Amino acid sequence: MNQAVLAQTIDRVAFDSAGLIAAIAQQHDTGEVLMLAWMNRDALAETLETGRVCYFSRSRNKLWRKGESSGQTQRLIELRLDCDQDAVLLMVDQTGVACHTGRRSCFYNAVRDGALVSISEPDVSPDQLYPS
Amino acid sequence: MNQAVLAQTIDRVAFDSAGLIAAIAQQHDTGEVLMLAWMNRDALAETLETGRVCYFSRSRNKLWRKGESSGQTQRLIELRLDCDQDAVLLMVDQTGVACHTGRRSCFYNAVRDGALVSISEPDVSPDQLYPS
Repeated sequence: MNQAVLAQTIDRVAFDSAGLIAAIAQQHDTGEVLMLAWMNRDALAETLETGRVCYFSRSRNKLWRKGESSGQTQRLIELRLDCDQDAVLLMVDQTGVACHTGRRSCFYNAVRDGALVSISEPDVSPDQLYPS
Repeated sequence: MNQAVLAQTIDRVAFDSAGLIAAIAQQHDTGEVLMLAWMNRDALAETLETGRVCYFSRSRNKLWRKGESSGQTQRLIELRLDCDQDAVLLMVDQTGVACHTGRRSCFYNAVRDGALVSISEPDVSPDQLYPS
């Protein structure tokens, strides 16, 4: 992606007052929604340039190259912007699991039969993802 | 859903400093991500109580019963909460279109071949959705 087109795309984005945009990651072939995180301008630019998803961590206040610690990277298949330009949908190919708990998706708590219950188990132990 | 369980569920949610949580709507059977919007406590409670999706409009600063003007309602199939309780995934059955532009999904701008292009056309005219 050349720099002019990249800048043009990013200039379309309506970042919030903190300079962030919400980013939904969806597994491109199964449709599973994996997680929601945030991007700033630099994270969005890096993601488009490298094809490897980079978020902005609000808790650590820095770029968060997904998988840099755990190896559970996300390869960008396609980036989509919504109608009012304040959310992006990342169609990705997720290596392993998206969730820090070791589950494939972060959305594993569901309201079923009037109660909030866990609907999936970890595929991998967090200790394996983040060895100390 | 009884009131005690409802309160218990909502108490699990980590609303942001503005009292909001990001909500992704996904068509339950096709997996299509339709939109991203926001909910406050009242919107979340009403959605769980009625089974009809209600957001909080940040621009209008009030509850936004999806489809109240356009008829394009969302029936809640299942609500899921993410690992850090600051995002919800709404599995819905969308009547008609989710986007105010008349498109099925709000995420109709995609970066393809290095340019941001529209990848879907309106199914219905906005004039039909919002007659004056």
